[in-house]
Amino acid sequence: MDHLADVLRQLFVLLLAAKIGDELFKRLRQPPVVGEILAGAIVGPAVLGWYEINPETMLFAEIGVVLLLFQVGLETRLHDLVRVGPTALAVGALGVALPFGGGFLLAEMLGSPLVVAVFLAAALTATSVGITSGVLRDLGALRTQSGRVILGAAVIDDVLAMLILAFASGLAAGSVSLDRIAALVVVAVLFIGIVLVGGTRILARRRSLLTDPEFAETPFLPGMIIMLGLAALASQIGLAAIIGAFLAGMVVGESSERHALESEVAPVAAFFTPFFFGFIGAQVDIAGLGNVETLALVAAVTVVAVATKFVGAFLGAIRRGRAEATLIGWGMVPRGEVGIVVAGLGLQIGAIEGQLYTVVVAMAILTTIIVPPFLPALVRRAEGPVPDLTPESR
Amino acid sequence: MDHLADVLRQLFVLLLAAKIGDELFKRLRQPPVVGEILAGAIVGPAVLGWYEINPETMLFAEIGVVLLLFQVGLETRLHDLVRVGPTALAVGALGVALPFGGGFLLAEMLGSPLVVAVFLAAALTATSVGITSGVLRDLGALRTQSGRVILGAAVIDDVLAMLILAFASGLAAGSVSLDRIAALVVVAVLFIGIVLVGGTRILARRRSLLTDPEFAETPFLPGMIIMLGLAALASQIGLAAIIGAFLAGMVVGESSERHALESEVAPVAAFFTPFFFGFIGAQVDIAGLGNVETLALVAAVTVVAVATKFVGAFLGAIRRGRAEATLIGWGMVPRGEVGIVVAGLGLQIGAIEGQLYTVVVAMAILTTIIVPPFLPALVRRAEGPVPDLTPESR
Repeated sequence: MDHLADVLRQLFVLLLAAKIGDELFKRLRQPPVVGEILAGAIVGPAVLGWYEINPETMLFAEIGVVLLLFQVGLETRLHDLVRVGPTALAVGALGVALPFGGGFLLAEMLGSPLVVAVFLAAALTATSVGITSGVLRDLGALRTQSGRVILGAAVIDDVLAMLILAFASGLAAGSVSLDRIAALVVVAVLFIGIVLVGGTRILARRRSLLTDPEFAETPFLPGMIIMLGLAALASQIGLAAIIGAFLAGMVVGESSERHALESEVAPVAAFFTPFFFGFIGAQVDIAGLGNVETLALVAAVTVVAVATKFVGAFLGAIRRGRAEATLIGWGMVPRGEVGIVVAGLGLQIGAIEGQLYTVVVAMAILTTIIVPPFLPALVRRAEGPVPDLTPESR
Repeated sequence: MDHLADVLRQLFVLLLAAKIGDELFKRLRQPPVVGEILAGAIVGPAVLGWYEINPETMLFAEIGVVLLLFQVGLETRLHDLVRVGPTALAVGALGVALPFGGGFLLAEMLGSPLVVAVFLAAALTATSVGITSGVLRDLGALRTQSGRVILGAAVIDDVLAMLILAFASGLAAGSVSLDRIAALVVVAVLFIGIVLVGGTRILARRRSLLTDPEFAETPFLPGMIIMLGLAALASQIGLAAIIGAFLAGMVVGESSERHALESEVAPVAAFFTPFFFGFIGAQVDIAGLGNVETLALVAAVTVVAVATKFVGAFLGAIRRGRAEATLIGWGMVPRGEVGIVVAGLGLQIGAIEGQLYTVVVAMAILTTIIVPPFLPALVRRAEGPVPDLTPESR
């Protein structure tokens, strides 16, 4: 009971702080998510210590980003993703290859051992699509072609990053099992394929399926059950839970009552997503950044992370013209919680040590904070005035 | 990441099971909450073991009942509670005194030491208002006079139970500090008084207060912040978190946009409450009940718990006539999670041992399961056809 009381207090503090940050940044005409992240940093362990990283607060953060991607999935139709498939594939592949190469070269230049170099490279690869898709949603730009390329590329990106992580973990454990990595590819591709093609087809054929049960008047609860199930399954097979949630959203979005569903998911997501953004900020270790060497390393890693991801994704999208390719490249830059998870795993299995962990976390947060301020202008340049530009309430 | 994947899987299993139980019981024309509780027992540690009691699943259960009482508070106006005040006070006081006396006598008869007797008595006192108010909501009977008496009595009940628990804990620790207990009374009464009178007055005077911030288009997020804050504060001062959530709902319900707020809270509560009901069921330890002596003890404790609470609350409400008094008495019977928490505390500080813990948990679940089936008929007898009898979607 006492522990629960503490957790309730911490959740209260984080939600309140995030919403104050949101409020201030809205009034300053800056991206509210950045305000939420900074607020999380202030109440988190690094500054005030009113909020701590524990299993319960991590769960709320995870549910927050899972709901965000579920919402994004609801607004995404399979045939739209398929149409941008080749571009998304190129963006995903080049947007993973260049950061991996860049991270590896940087670590080699610094004289790091092979295992450390591979882990740093792995931490630089995966985009966190949560931030960009959240901002694009607010701008009403999720259904533009560029928005769809970013979403499709994020799925491909996550599969590739999972494989690289499996490779890096194997290397740290002393043996890389190519069989195991091949099995991972097969499982991941099967999971995505079966869920997307099978799921959307079943629901497209029988659109009332989600409202047939008597416990459900709307597709909301059946949809949430599917979301939790696919998020759990995705993370069980080594993908990010958010990929499962995104796929669940796409499948459930085929329901005949998608709009009722969206309006019921919206408050749940609005309640939970601040815990995710605040949590990202709370990870920062300001004390650990307190010397010149570490700061220089943060700068170097961040520059490499931004430049390689931007150039890779830009080149992948170049056939869509410079304006769209710039938006797509920039939208893929945030590493967010995925970079932090990879670094945490490296720390846990002993592949990297404390300083590099701090550096990677700082890189993940910096790449996440710098992206939102420039997105509105890039969206305008790439897509012109977006038809439904009314910011949706988050 | 692995641990999070497991937690996501467990939450998925519990939500799916609870909704299957809900569906079956709805089709059998039985109370859906009982179906959710039994489903929790089946997937819980006692039978299938697909769901475990851990900090994260406990948090989800707690948030579930917090949201349920927040919803109930939204539908409750202060002046309505004040009008039933004297009756609620009598119901609360007698509904605590008789179970305490009954539990104490039973333990004395069984030859238990004083500390054990006081703890058993304490575990029998507190009503869990979650179950009854949930069922009354479904029946549209929350705004009847009996519904209001039950809600008011539950608040008084919880304050008294907190004091008894403080007394019992002091006794177990070897010293009862009357100063500390007096301080608890003062703090609890001040908390409830200031929140209710001050909070409702401020919001009644300036009804747009919750929609003034720019981050909020509706009072939903400000309301959720207040709910978390008061729930945390209530549990910090020794009251149940749900009392804080109930008060928060009453305060926020003064907002000018109460109906917008209710429709946004509904899906969040619908998502979370199954975790609460399922969690209650998952607590049951069927293996521990596997001998005749324990079963006899469960029967005795449950009979005492039901009879004393019913008679106490019935006598407190007798001035409202037999039909209403029967409804109120029966509605106060469930002990739910409050009984389990008291027993858990007793186990933790060594005042009771494993067998008695199992017995109290079984009593809490039995008193919770037997109440819902009879409520619809009792409501009809006491209140006649209720105007808004359309079951609200949970």
